[in-house]
Amino acid sequence: MSLCLLSALAAQQAPDPSSSLPDLAPYRGTVRDLVKTSLREGQAYEMLRELCRVAPGRLSGSPSAAAAVAWARQTMIDQGLENVRLEPVMVPQWRRGQVARLRVVEPSHASDLSLPVCALGGSIGTEADGVMAEVVEVKSFGALRNLGEIPKGRIVFFNQPMDPTVLQTFQAYGGAVRQRGSGAIEGAKLGALGVVIRSVASNLDDSPHTGAMHYDDAVPKIPAAAVSTLGAERLSRLLAAGERVVLRLDLDCSWHEDVPSHNVVGELVGRELPDEFVVLGGHLDSWDLGEGAHDDGAGCVQSIEVLRLLKAMDLRPRRTVRCVLFMNEENGLRGGRQYAIDHEDELSKHVMALESDRGGFTPRGFTTSAHSEGIEVLRHLASLLADVGAERVYAGGGGADISPMAPYGVPLVGLMPDSHRYFDLHHSKNDCFATVNERELELGAACMAALCYLAADLEEPLPRNPATVQK
Amino acid sequence: MSLCLLSALAAQQAPDPSSSLPDLAPYRGTVRDLVKTSLREGQAYEMLRELCRVAPGRLSGSPSAAAAVAWARQTMIDQGLENVRLEPVMVPQWRRGQVARLRVVEPSHASDLSLPVCALGGSIGTEADGVMAEVVEVKSFGALRNLGEIPKGRIVFFNQPMDPTVLQTFQAYGGAVRQRGSGAIEGAKLGALGVVIRSVASNLDDSPHTGAMHYDDAVPKIPAAAVSTLGAERLSRLLAAGERVVLRLDLDCSWHEDVPSHNVVGELVGRELPDEFVVLGGHLDSWDLGEGAHDDGAGCVQSIEVLRLLKAMDLRPRRTVRCVLFMNEENGLRGGRQYAIDHEDELSKHVMALESDRGGFTPRGFTTSAHSEGIEVLRHLASLLADVGAERVYAGGGGADISPMAPYGVPLVGLMPDSHRYFDLHHSKNDCFATVNERELELGAACMAALCYLAADLEEPLPRNPATVQK
Repeated sequence: MSLCLLSALAAQQAPDPSSSLPDLAPYRGTVRDLVKTSLREGQAYEMLRELCRVAPGRLSGSPSAAAAVAWARQTMIDQGLENVRLEPVMVPQWRRGQVARLRVVEPSHASDLSLPVCALGGSIGTEADGVMAEVVEVKSFGALRNLGEIPKGRIVFFNQPMDPTVLQTFQAYGGAVRQRGSGAIEGAKLGALGVVIRSVASNLDDSPHTGAMHYDDAVPKIPAAAVSTLGAERLSRLLAAGERVVLRLDLDCSWHEDVPSHNVVGELVGRELPDEFVVLGGHLDSWDLGEGAHDDGAGCVQSIEVLRLLKAMDLRPRRTVRCVLFMNEENGLRGGRQYAIDHEDELSKHVMALESDRGGFTPRGFTTSAHSEGIEVLRHLASLLADVGAERVYAGGGGADISPMAPYGVPLVGLMPDSHRYFDLHHSKNDCFATVNERELELGAACMAALCYLAADLEEPLPRNPATVQK
Repeated sequence: MSLCLLSALAAQQAPDPSSSLPDLAPYRGTVRDLVKTSLREGQAYEMLRELCRVAPGRLSGSPSAAAAVAWARQTMIDQGLENVRLEPVMVPQWRRGQVARLRVVEPSHASDLSLPVCALGGSIGTEADGVMAEVVEVKSFGALRNLGEIPKGRIVFFNQPMDPTVLQTFQAYGGAVRQRGSGAIEGAKLGALGVVIRSVASNLDDSPHTGAMHYDDAVPKIPAAAVSTLGAERLSRLLAAGERVVLRLDLDCSWHEDVPSHNVVGELVGRELPDEFVVLGGHLDSWDLGEGAHDDGAGCVQSIEVLRLLKAMDLRPRRTVRCVLFMNEENGLRGGRQYAIDHEDELSKHVMALESDRGGFTPRGFTTSAHSEGIEVLRHLASLLADVGAERVYAGGGGADISPMAPYGVPLVGLMPDSHRYFDLHHSKNDCFATVNERELELGAACMAALCYLAADLEEPLPRNPATVQK
């Protein structure tokens, strides 16, 4: 029962004293206090409850997204953040509509087969009489191309599952998500009339998972839907029986004009170097089937919580810590791009950008775009989180919203929580507040607070990456 | 997104080549295959679905516990385990009954206050007209004793929460659970008529959590109930207003004669040393408010799965691996004790005992009773699980059911999963299959399989602890 050797690993990872790594001794107690305070009186969980209540399913351009912007601004003010402001950005407006239906027309004995679907984000709708065509199943783009003329006039069913044997589910997601993003393009190139993709999800259930898909102006735009993983299994079994299968797909989703929206920004102004910045954030928009609790309500409330926590503990670091809740990560990345444009003059003074966009689960560490020297420093900083079990730092991305800062040499960091549950919920109706654990969420915020505080307070800033654009 | 440096930590933890630690090179590929195979085709999750369906709430001596014994035996046979058998053990029989009710009698304006309660396991029932008395709140046994005569004739309300700032929730649980186990004794010593304890849980909700409580023959037996954590907060606020509060507690739980039951045992017989054993297991009984999915259905199916997996992969180790599903951990530990008695002659040949009884969450490592040299070897073995993130080994217990083997020098090991969610669910109606994640559960089984295989196959067995009894 008693787990008394938690500091052993931290000791193992202590830095070589001959290196130029920063001395963390003055920060050890502060990090411990941040963790304990967040577990005792963190507010991220209660903020998330509120966000999911007042603005669930915050699709860009929707009334709920507007409600989220208003909520975030007021919450930042209420929590004592400084320089709270809205930064305008135009966002795309895609509406899901009311109808998403996939039915078996032939063979008639299978007409009751349950195939729960949702439109993929960005899909055009079908004509009023739907798309009716024979279906052909493939598991990869390569297999599709090998079909030659067969897909012409048909519905293509992409049925590649996430690889369950990959330990990090984000990696498995990366391996399967292309069929969602580009399936309609690849299908249309061969003359398909529509595509149905297996939900990019890690479990078997009957909730379809939405997500972004793209078109290519060089080929016709065809409707695209995601079927639940169990539905995909059923359809695959039906096809395996060898009969000709004709499906009818109905979608009434639609595109509309861009609308004005906002990134929401608040700060804790630095005590010595107020014009140097650590930026942290998440994205305020979400898909609309669930509440957007893990994706990315969690990252938003954690980011506000970092500043609330630092302020409540009277920890004002040397540099400014800026919280940015980005709009439109899911279907446009307009907020992230706009931030980099609007703040281009400041990016050389952005010493780190941190995003939380992998769910509100137990923190295990961070991924980073930082090059070798930067990784070494980050590993050193994260060693203070060994007793939380969040000391790992891997090479990887930071997060979509902060990626437009990469060309300027800003080191990007992403919070890396335990990933096993994320893709059971992600982009589906199951991404709701009830699936969030308070301790896990608050601990993630504490780890972010620790890293941001260190990056903002250390005399020597993190090593930058080489810039590929100059400003 | 891409997490490509997962092997870095493993490399960091490679052993000092000058030490006498076993060479793990021949096992590295096997462990990797165990992990991948369990993620791809593990059966623990489907076994747990079945166990929770056919035998939910397996309270010792109940029909559901008998169903669980039959299910476990048949499942072991179906999964190809060897020497499957039932080992008899007499178990206590406490019945919850139908009535558990706590109401505010005074002040009358609070008569609607919601105070959801359940009987604590082992409590006597109340008389037909309940226990009606003024309530007094305390947060510790020390505070209770300081009240002098006040508790006499009253209901004592123990309201100590789990300490949220402790990172390992099992440690926080240990700090709060005494009020549940001994509250009725301490209250009765001062003349109390009944006790109500705050559910020993990590979250705020309206589900009371049951669990074992004890009596002392030297003091009167008084009824004991647990109130939900939100109920405890409400009652505490009412008391804080300063009015006299009279409660009425009704329970119809009851004790009955011991009944016969069984531990369920299956093996994978060792290829060279069949009379030396690695034992692994969990407990087949559970509390009755939920399904007993995490506590400890998870440990049971993981233990069966270890042998299924080894057999399916044609991995028959040098020594015998024995799976024991123990009966009556929750309110008697009769199964664990009986096993140590029945197998006393073999315990000097038990090279390791491993229990999984901390929920089916993402594995983080192990705790162990092994002394320093043993811990060093175990850390070395667990380093093969670094890419799973389960390489930590801490000093601690192994598990209640295997603890009777400790005096014989058997090194005890407990699977240590991520602990943040466990006490939200534990012993309440929320401990159900729906809260279990397939990947997390199967990965726990994979880690157990790896450790058991290593312990059973290494030429040199794990260092034993000094025995305190001789056989």
